[in-house]
Amino acid sequence: MRERMVVIGADAAGMSAASQARRRRSPDDLEIVAFERGGFTSYSACGIPYWISGDVPDRDALVARTPAELRTAYAVDVRMRTEVEAIDLDRREVVARERETGRDVRCGFDVLVVATGAVPVRPELPGVDAAGVFGVQTLDDGVAVREALDAGARRAVVVGGGYIGVEMAEALVKRGLRVTLVERAAEPMSTLDPDMGRLVREAMLGMGIDVRSGQTVQGFAVADGRIRAVVTERGEVAADLVVLGIGVRPNTGLAAAAGLPLGPTGGLRTDRRMRVSGVEGVWAAGDCVETYDLVARQPVHVPLGTHANKQGRVIGINVGGGYATFPGIVRTAVSKVCELEIARTGLREADVERAGLRCVTATVDSTTRAGYYPGAAPITTKIIAEKSSGRLLGAQIVGREGAAKRIDALAVALWAGLTVDDMTGLDLGYAPPFAPVWDPVLITARKAQEAVEADLRRGVTEASCTER
Amino acid sequence: MRERMVVIGADAAGMSAASQARRRRSPDDLEIVAFERGGFTSYSACGIPYWISGDVPDRDALVARTPAELRTAYAVDVRMRTEVEAIDLDRREVVARERETGRDVRCGFDVLVVATGAVPVRPELPGVDAAGVFGVQTLDDGVAVREALDAGARRAVVVGGGYIGVEMAEALVKRGLRVTLVERAAEPMSTLDPDMGRLVREAMLGMGIDVRSGQTVQGFAVADGRIRAVVTERGEVAADLVVLGIGVRPNTGLAAAAGLPLGPTGGLRTDRRMRVSGVEGVWAAGDCVETYDLVARQPVHVPLGTHANKQGRVIGINVGGGYATFPGIVRTAVSKVCELEIARTGLREADVERAGLRCVTATVDSTTRAGYYPGAAPITTKIIAEKSSGRLLGAQIVGREGAAKRIDALAVALWAGLTVDDMTGLDLGYAPPFAPVWDPVLITARKAQEAVEADLRRGVTEASCTER
Repeated sequence: MRERMVVIGADAAGMSAASQARRRRSPDDLEIVAFERGGFTSYSACGIPYWISGDVPDRDALVARTPAELRTAYAVDVRMRTEVEAIDLDRREVVARERETGRDVRCGFDVLVVATGAVPVRPELPGVDAAGVFGVQTLDDGVAVREALDAGARRAVVVGGGYIGVEMAEALVKRGLRVTLVERAAEPMSTLDPDMGRLVREAMLGMGIDVRSGQTVQGFAVADGRIRAVVTERGEVAADLVVLGIGVRPNTGLAAAAGLPLGPTGGLRTDRRMRVSGVEGVWAAGDCVETYDLVARQPVHVPLGTHANKQGRVIGINVGGGYATFPGIVRTAVSKVCELEIARTGLREADVERAGLRCVTATVDSTTRAGYYPGAAPITTKIIAEKSSGRLLGAQIVGREGAAKRIDALAVALWAGLTVDDMTGLDLGYAPPFAPVWDPVLITARKAQEAVEADLRRGVTEASCTER
Repeated sequence: MRERMVVIGADAAGMSAASQARRRRSPDDLEIVAFERGGFTSYSACGIPYWISGDVPDRDALVARTPAELRTAYAVDVRMRTEVEAIDLDRREVVARERETGRDVRCGFDVLVVATGAVPVRPELPGVDAAGVFGVQTLDDGVAVREALDAGARRAVVVGGGYIGVEMAEALVKRGLRVTLVERAAEPMSTLDPDMGRLVREAMLGMGIDVRSGQTVQGFAVADGRIRAVVTERGEVAADLVVLGIGVRPNTGLAAAAGLPLGPTGGLRTDRRMRVSGVEGVWAAGDCVETYDLVARQPVHVPLGTHANKQGRVIGINVGGGYATFPGIVRTAVSKVCELEIARTGLREADVERAGLRCVTATVDSTTRAGYYPGAAPITTKIIAEKSSGRLLGAQIVGREGAAKRIDALAVALWAGLTVDDMTGLDLGYAPPFAPVWDPVLITARKAQEAVEADLRRGVTEASCTER
């Protein structure tokens, strides 16, 4: 008998699940219905800043699969601008409202995929709902920012110095705006340790971005319903455009109301096959789920397109009759702000303490290519290794062209549980256009290994965690 | 009592050993004497093509440490243009001839480091010793090629389409010469499988390099002692400059004459601490030794600066009283010819058969960045996985900017013994400027994993090794 799979959210996670399931099961065997409250499907949310900046000229380029393509190529019955309002687990159906007609529809399911994504955190501060204050989470949000730019915004304040914050700062600088970035922490990019975040701040200042770190937004000054300035404890920063980049939280209201289990991070709790724990036939993936940090060995919420795609694919394979798992992540992330490349994986120093571990670190300034080769660019690599064992715990990179993707070798080493001693022998690619004869990764591993040894020799029990 | 370490060969391997030993032992404890037959120390042989091309304007930039620096900063007594002619293991001394004076000197040792490098293979063909026929192994060789270019060479033939061959082809094209590359195999870059080598040939043809693969050099036509043409079975190719890039062999005549053990590859045989097997106090590193292929599980000779440096460092640590090993390699290599980037690691399909294994493969065309992001460039990734087990055996990449160093993630996966199934979950860095949401490495691992599964389902015992 034909089954029906209902997918809530027609973006990366949901449509990866749908397309993989479709590869394995024909429309005669599996009907797929997807509800999308927004106006776009399967788009690259990570690409939005680059469309806002103009680097990507065509908005449609961000859309991997349009509703029409999903319908014809994957036989997915996509219901656009239709928001699921309730999941009825007893009756095995969802209730959805068509936003244009206001009409409610009911749709039964055999298999349910919850892929409701995340929503930007909006601080409960005066003026936060003024016109001109934007989150940048969906393509609809991106359209709104573009409209504000086209309407003549000149001064922008980005609140929050994480990935979205620094990428939006770059985008707005490229569009010719005066950009201020306000960040509560001492340094931007708090996914890095502060010593590496300092390099990001210095580089952003050099790009003409007014970075105000260590400042807290206390409210938004509004005139005639429009944003006029961002208020911090040090005064006002004039703005006719504000971007909130202070993070997102899993969008789980619907799931929670249905009694689906949430984990400690607030994301839906699933097993490694992406089944919602304890609920037969219900799966979840993407920014609405929590995943597992393989290094810290604890649940974590990391909304990132690459995880969403992998998790969705795992669901599709499993629903399709195969066997696949998503074991977790090591928190790899790469980003750029103008010419600066930023990368991280694994634990920061603060995470190490929190995980009850102890570490040594090594930080090395080197070049992306042989020093004598044209285009050799600076790269700073930091490695964090467990005391005594020398096990790799994390790494961070800040540098110029060719720096960021070096994190991949470190991410695989972390995944595989290598020690920094193992890593000194790694056979990484060497030729002058691509690396110094000692790749920055290798030389930092060497220094970290020396730090582990020196620490063992000292036999110390210092609280301090840093060797430089 | 002060010991004396004698190093034969003052390039990467030898001087890495010397500098590491010096970090751990003072001149009062360890005297270091180095004999170098050439005119340069510690230079980047891999950088020679880029100096010839003019990309690296200054020859001295290739020299990491001059003799003067070695003497003052490392207290190494470097004897330049002094060639060791004999090793006397019984008397624990070497005999060396000063090339300028013709004088022989004897020098006793407590510790001997053999770092005699490699010599280019010169085919025993008529005319091979004519003026204008060059190997490119040492910086002295590079100087000779530059002189020939300055003297007005216009037509160049590169014999051999390996790393040195394609890099020299690029260099000579950049210098404005008409360049022909003659390669015996069906495709250049025989360190790749032929299907990937074909991509290299096509790209080189597009760069105006006349690639004549599947042709064998039969001799060199000479006029007045100078090269006039390269002769193949298909006729003559006019040339006033010929570069031999048909490989190198370990330079072990001196070591063999002293009775030091050579392995099946012709390189000196050492243990993992780089001690010459069975000979107390004698160490060897670099292009003169054989190392161990961790994937094929057999000895291999791979002359490459990065191995030489690592091996030399291992000797220096061990001589200095520490403990270090060089476990072997996975045969990672990266190269470029003009805008084309080439990378490989592990076994090729032909190696798989030779190692008595069986494989499936997957090859994927993708882009280096998100398809919509400016600068997204083509990349073709091939993964070779063991049948049934799915263990990663090798990988190859051909593409444009941003392609080659992706091999590092694969090299670490190979090093760690991951399966392609493991690899589908790898947490590699994703952001639109750096990768598509499915990194080419991940998507190729996925395809390889699907090939492993499909093969298992078929339960076949076909001889064919390829899935595409």
